[in-house]
Order: sequence, then C-alpha cells, then structure tokens
Amino acid sequence: MEDGLRVTVWNEGVHEKKDARVQELYPNGIGGQIAQYLRKQPGIASVREVTMDSPEQGLSDEVLETTDVMTWWGHKAHHEVTDERAAKVQAAVVERGMGLLPLHSAHFSKPFILLMGTSCSLKWREYKGIGEKERLWVVNPGHPIVDGVPECIELELAEMYGEHFDIPQPDQLVFISWFRGGEVFRSGCCWHRGLGKVFYFRPGHETLPIYYNDHILRVIYNGVRWAAPVRVAGGITRRKFAPLEPEW
Amino acid sequence: MEDGLRVTVWNEGVHEKKDARVQELYPNGIGGQIAQYLRKQPGIASVREVTMDSPEQGLSDEVLETTDVMTWWGHKAHHEVTDERAAKVQAAVVERGMGLLPLHSAHFSKPFILLMGTSCSLKWREYKGIGEKERLWVVNPGHPIVDGVPECIELELAEMYGEHFDIPQPDQLVFISWFRGGEVFRSGCCWHRGLGKVFYFRPGHETLPIYYNDHILRVIYNGVRWAAPVRVAGGITRRKFAPLEPEW
Amino acid sequence: MEDGLRVTVWNEGVHEKKDARVQELYPNGIGGQIAQYLRKQPGIASVREVTMDSPEQGLSDEVLETTDVMTWWGHKAHHEVTDERAAKVQAAVVERGMGLLPLHSAHFSKPFILLMGTSCSLKWREYKGIGEKERLWVVNPGHPIVDGVPECIELELAEMYGEHFDIPQPDQLVFISWFRGGEVFRSGCCWHRGLGKVFYFRPGHETLPIYYNDHILRVIYNGVRWAAPVRVAGGITRRKFAPLEPEW
Amino acid sequence: MEDGLRVTVWNEGVHEKKDARVQELYPNGIGGQIAQYLRKQPGIASVREVTMDSPEQGLSDEVLETTDVMTWWGHKAHHEVTDERAAKVQAAVVERGMGLLPLHSAHFSKPFILLMGTSCSLKWREYKGIGEKERLWVVNPGHPIVDGVPECIELELAEMYGEHFDIPQPDQLVFISWFRGGEVFRSGCCWHRGLGKVFYFRPGHETLPIYYNDHILRVIYNGVRWAAPVRVAGGITRRKFAPLEPEW
Repeated sequence: MEDGLRVTVWNEGVHEKKDARVQELYPNGIGGQIAQYLRKQPGIASVREVTMDSPEQGLSDEVLETTDVMTWWGHKAHHEVTDERAAKVQAAVVERGMGLLPLHSAHFSKPFILLMGTSCSLKWREYKGIGEKERLWVVNPGHPIVDGVPECIELELAEMYGEHFDIPQPDQLVFISWFRGGEVFRSGCCWHRGLGKVFYFRPGHETLPIYYNDHILRVIYNGVRWAAPVRVAGGITRRKFAPLEPEW
Repeated sequence: MEDGLRVTVWNEGVHEKKDARVQELYPNGIGGQIAQYLRKQPGIASVREVTMDSPEQGLSDEVLETTDVMTWWGHKAHHEVTDERAAKVQAAVVERGMGLLPLHSAHFSKPFILLMGTSCSLKWREYKGIGEKERLWVVNPGHPIVDGVPECIELELAEMYGEHFDIPQPDQLVFISWFRGGEVFRSGCCWHRGLGKVFYFRPGHETLPIYYNDHILRVIYNGVRWAAPVRVAGGITRRKFAPLEPEW
Repeated sequence: MEDGLRVTVWNEGVHEKKDARVQELYPNGIGGQIAQYLRKQPGIASVREVTMDSPEQGLSDEVLETTDVMTWWGHKAHHEVTDERAAKVQAAVVERGMGLLPLHSAHFSKPFILLMGTSCSLKWREYKGIGEKERLWVVNPGHPIVDGVPECIELELAEMYGEHFDIPQPDQLVFISWFRGGEVFRSGCCWHRGLGKVFYFRPGHETLPIYYNDHILRVIYNGVRWAAPVRVAGGITRRKFAPLEPEW
Repeated sequence: MEDGLRVTVWNEGVHEKKDARVQELYPNGIGGQIAQYLRKQPGIASVREVTMDSPEQGLSDEVLETTDVMTWWGHKAHHEVTDERAAKVQAAVVERGMGLLPLHSAHFSKPFILLMGTSCSLKWREYKGIGEKERLWVVNPGHPIVDGVPECIELELAEMYGEHFDIPQPDQLVFISWFRGGEVFRSGCCWHRGLGKVFYFRPGHETLPIYYNDHILRVIYNGVRWAAPVRVAGGITRRKFAPLEPEW
C-alpha cells in the first residue's frame, strides 16, 4: 500500500530568485535539494518539482490528482497562493487522501491554516540575524516517522519557533524542540484530516543548511511514507442513506 | 472560573416560521426552549437569544465580545450566514476563548466547518419521515459532560446520522450513538481550538421533542460549563520574540 | 522498516481441546487459521504458532526476543498465564517495541490489562446462545489498518460486546461496532506504549467462523504491519544524564 | 459538581525526617505546605494529610473511600508502598473516580506506573548538586488547568527531567518544560483512566522552594478541580448484559 508513491515537492521559489545566500546554499532551490534526496529512497516512484511560477501555481487539478504526497515549503508569498488553489489542496487531502508535509514557515501557508482551523501563529526569533542552537527530542519512539533517527537531533544554528503554537492538539506528537534562548516547540506533529494525513515538521530555514542534514532528510522521507494514501474498498459514501437492512 | 457564564443561544429560526409542526412543538422556538432551561441552571449569569433575523445575523461584534459560550442550532439556512460573520465566530473561539456548542444539523454550519478543517459530512436518514430509535452510550464516564447523566440515553424516535462523520479525531469522545437501522455515530465530541473549546452534540431534530428530554438538556448544560473560557494571566503573546534571557 | 516481519501467533488452545464445535470450525486451531493466512501475505518473514502448552506457555524469553509482532487469542484460561510471563510480554512491548494484537476475548488477557492500566471490562451477550448481527464501521478512513477494507464490515452472527469498554482513550480509534440488540463498541483501537504499539480488534468468537472472513483477516494483517517495531538510532537512553552541553 | 471536594495530600515523609535542608525549607513537610495552600481555596471542603507512617501507609480503604482527589509526593520509598495498597489506589481511580495528582518524582510511584502501563522512566540531572533554570510553557491555553497562570512559569533552579518520558500519550498535554542544559519535558499531562482522572505535574524538588511559587500552587489547585469525580447517574454496569430491547 505504501509503495510506488508519487511525490510532488512544492517550493515557493521566491527566496531563491532574490537572495544570493539562498542561491549559494541551495543552487537547485530548496525544493530541488529535498527532491534529489527523495528520488533516491525506496518506495518512491516519482518526485515532481513545482513552484509558484509553475502553471496554476504548481497546484493544478492535474498535479493534485496525480500526487500521493506533497511537501510544501513557503515563506514570503503565502498570501499570493490563491484562495481557490489553497482550497483545492485542502480538498485533495480531505476528500482524496493526499498526504501533506508543511515544512518550517509553511505553518502560515493557506492550506495548512485551512486544514487546522486555527491561526497557526507562534513566536519566533532569528538570533543576531543568524540563529541559535536547537535540539529536536523524540517523544514518541514507536512512531514510524522516527525510524532510523537518533533520540535527539542537534542543529547548531536554527531560527527559533516558540510556543504557544496555535494548532489543534496533534493526533500524535513526535518531536519537541529545545532552543538555547529559552523556548520549546512542538516540531513534529501528525494529524488525520478526512481521508488524508498531515505531518508538520519545523526545521528548515532558507539561509541555513538544514536540508543537508541526514537526520532531517530521513524524517521528511519517513513522513512521506507515513502520509501515504489509504484505500478504503468501495470508498466512503457521503449521502442520504437507505437502510442497509430495511426489513424492520 | 466557571461561574457567571454569559450564554448566547443562536437559533437559525427558519423552521419555526414555516412549519406548523415545529411551531406546535417549540412555541418559543428551538432556541427558546434551550434558553429557558439554561436560565434555571447554576453558574449561568445570563442567556441571550438571537436568530438569523437579529442585527448582523445575531453575530455582531458586540454579541461575540460579550458571550462566554454560544450554542448553535441551524439547518436550512447555513449558506445564508455570511462568510464574514462565520469567520468572526471562528475567531471568537480561537482568539478569545468563546465556547461553541454546535447542535445536531449544525455539523454543516459554517463556523463548525471552519474550525474543523474537514467536510463535516455524514450519512443520514429520516426513517418513514418520522425517525427511529437511538441510544447514546457514554464512552468516557469520567468526563464532566456526563455528570448526572445515565450511561445510556434512549430516544424513541430520532433522525439517523451515520459514520463516516468527517471530523478530526475528537480530543475527547464522550458519546457514541446506536441507531436501530444499523448505524453508529460519534455523537458527543470535544475539541480544543486555540483559546477556545468546541462541543458537538448530535441530538435535536426540529420535528421531535428531543430538547424536552431532561438528559439531553443536562448534557447541553454540562457542555456549556465545560466550554467556559479560561484566562491565561497576561494572555498569549503572538509576536516576534525577544529572548527572555538575552545575556548569553 | 516494515518488511520481513517475524510474527508469533499466540493461541490459548483450550477450547480446541474440549469443544467439538470449535474443533470442527477450526481444525487447526484458531491460531492455525490466523497463521495460515498471515503466512501468505507480503512483508511477513515468518509465522510461528504457540499455545499455553508450549514451553513457558509459548512466552519464553527466546520467543519474545525473536518476535516483531504477536497476535493473542485467549478466553478460558487468562488466569493461568503466569504473572511473570505476562509482565515479560508487557516489557517486550514497552522496552523493545514488540507489536501486540489482542483479539476478541483477549481484552481480559493479563498483558493487555497491564498495558492499559484499567479494568478492560465491558458488557457482553451471546444472543440465544448463538449471536446477533454486528456491523463494524470505519471511523478513521485514512488509517493504514483499513487499507483495502470496506467502510462497513457486516458479520451475520457475533457475540455482543458493549460499552462502557474500560480502556484508556485510544490514540486512534479505527472501528466502532453496531449490534442489533442495541449496543455499540469501540472495536478497533490503537495505542502506543513505550517503544511498542498495541492494536485491539474485537471480532472473533470461538464458535463462529469469523476468522474465515476476508475483511477481518485483512484487518489483522494490516494491524500486524501497523504494529511493526521502529528502530530509533542508538536507542533511547534511560539514565542519569550528563549535560550534552557542559560548557555553561 | 466540583464543589465541596475532599482532598487527601499523600506525602511520603522520608526526606523530612533525615535531611536538615528539607526540614528548614518545609518545616511542616512538603505535604503540609501543599495542604495549607489548598485549604484556603474555594470549592475545597477538606484537606487531610497522610504519610507513609499513617495507618496502612495513609492508604486505608477508609481514606480512599472518602477522598475525591489525592495529591501524591514520593521519592525515596516508592518500593516500600505495598503492592496491595498501590493496587487499591489504582482501583480507587479506575473504579470509583478518585482524582490523582502525582507530583515530581511520583512519576516512579507504584500507583502511577500501574495506571500508565509503561515504565515511566526519564532522564534526570541535578546540575552541580543544585539545579538549573526551568521554564514551563503553556501549550494548551484553553485548558482549565492553566486558568490564572501565565504562559510561561520560570523557575530559577530546578532538577532537570528530560525526554523520552515513557508515558502513554497524554489525553491532553498542558505544559512543556525547557531546561537550560538542553532538554525538554512534558511537564503537565492529563489522562482519563476508567471513572477517574490523573494529572501529572513535574515541578517540586525536595531541596528547592518550588511549592512556595504561587503559579505552581495555582496549577496544583486547578489540577485538583479538573480531577474532581464525575457521577454517571445509576453508575456504569459491568456485567453479562440482557438486551435492553428483547422483543426482536
């Protein structure tokens, strides 16, 4: 059921056009770096890269209908994603079972906010314009998303995100982050929504080499596997319902 | 913390104008029947009744800002509630902690759908135009919402709602319904959303005397108490965050 | 991570020795029927059958240490399983990540009760000594345990189990049963416990051919896959903890 | 439903007899300090103090049957609590609805381990024999346990507890702690167990004045209120079940 996954890596693609540091760090784009990793992993049939500049913002019906799991990185241009396309992404998750992995600043992406029903706001800090130490602690060691990952992932420099993170209580909480400046954050969060699943994963600032970290990449891969669609035989009926047993 | 609650009973008020059966059953409206019960209960400071015909659909900023918990009954006119007012209700829950109790067909009300992030669809049947037997079984006997309620509430006639009910997994599941025709339903569901809480409670068809049932009324009252706002001292900060401890 | 699973089918084996109906229905034992199905499924490396008559009640250290997932069927002789062996099963789940699938009357097995921390009691009825109609409704259609299963599994005859089922709230609730006599039951329940996972699945009376039903067997197989162990790199440390960062 | 609570403060009472620092810090014992605070709060009918030296270790049937909520502080003598008394405490929670608040090192108390079904182990450190800075962040600002509490409680010196904390996923997670040395911890955790409720709250080392902190005391009081018993009318039936509706 989890093999042959068709993955779409959605990348906003704005920082890469404007910021020399990001270009140097991610010469193929943030999305390109994630995609090249996923392409080498078992069980992944295909990895497609799209950006805001792709037709229909990379979110055409055709793309959504042929995607099993979508990763999403965005930051500067959340508001430019049209309400119509954002609602289509939400529907792809809820009605059809597409998995969605919002990464880092995608906590403020329109599809994630629609799926959560809350503000998704948080505290943040970029210490001295650079960052600070972060540790991601595993709090659910039996969860498939932590398979092959150590109990603590340490990142020397990261942008801080702090609680209260305004999300519904995760169905499963997998990682909690510690930041040197004094904050904590629920960094790996799983939800079921309709037929689909959502895994929010915090790490990933545009000016830091976080998507080169083997553990971070492994978590993203595990998350893609976890978020794979499930097929109920015959589908779910949504309608006025005749009794299955009309004899009484 | 839970005393002196200001309750607003929002009632669509459309059936009452058009259907003689509903007028006879609920001469003061569905909302009126719920309100007159709540007014007699301890810990309730005030109960205000509003309908779609009230100023700003009964959902003005003034009403929302002076409501601790709102019950919501609607059915025929969900789509007439403006998107702007629905978003204000959502924000009152998430940003300010207002409790919300969507009742029965309010599963398809705009504020509930916004807060859930899913379709909130379900199966339904009005057997022979009348209804069928329902039993609501308590599955969380330590939850304050079942205080004083028996382990099984039996309703001789009820409209059937069936699974799959497309909602996020409840933070606490309190009641599961059995229907004679062969279906089950998660009938009492609790969620935290932002600063607020939501309790969906299934019973309550417009042509059946369900809101005269003492147990059903007690559950609604208990739900109002459970959904009371909580006050974090100093509020929750939502902003770019200076280190609390800048010395390092 | 989920391939090559080593499964142990633990079967009490008491009914099979005493009851002609059970012998006729399950000539290879209840465990034998489950085992022969699992052996044919992808991703299963081996299926070992054990009973109360096996050395150390089929629960020797060697068996537990070489089992990835254990299914458990018991009924008449729960109390004969020694406390020492029951505690070893609990530890295999919590400390080493073994998956456990208690089936049907195994709700009263010692390892399940130890893992839950509650009484695990319920209501039950064998209608006219035969049974009554049951329907298992899917309430989480995105969960891997329902892959390939219809939204409703109907069993013509089943022993009734009714709420309140005294268990901790499941981490994920997958199935709710309807019974013709008027009860409901949380029939498919998932929990994480320590490094391991537990899936309780209700169907399976000894005098009814429920383990010949393709859908029921598929759910058991999906449950085995879901309960597969996960490997945190380096394990989880359990000890007095030197600072990772002693310099401050 | 929550008024007139009868609280029992169970205090191991071993440190107080042997350690001058503890005697000076808590001249009336750790339990005495908690009890004198609770006695002044609204909705509390009585507060009884017991220790290991009380008859039947302070856990006689009479004490348990007349206690609505019990707070539990223990550290050095967990193993001296008899298995029989520990099982009685578990039963008081599950079968009768007594609330239980294990505090700090009571994570390793026998009743808590029985109720959780896991090892309840964790990492710990007493930095330089003194402690280090802790911050408890509110992650569920709508929960009654945080009423009147700021979004961050800072403790200048505290013993560190670190993840992985081997507990079942809390039904509601209320606080996450940050520690200066680099760890995080789920410090405020709510569970329903049978008819009862359990709130684990981390702060409270014997050599630190943590139970003089107004916010910490307020959380304990809120927890007592939250854990108050609920009364299902007629109780929960646990038995072989005649059909409610025998006519079919």
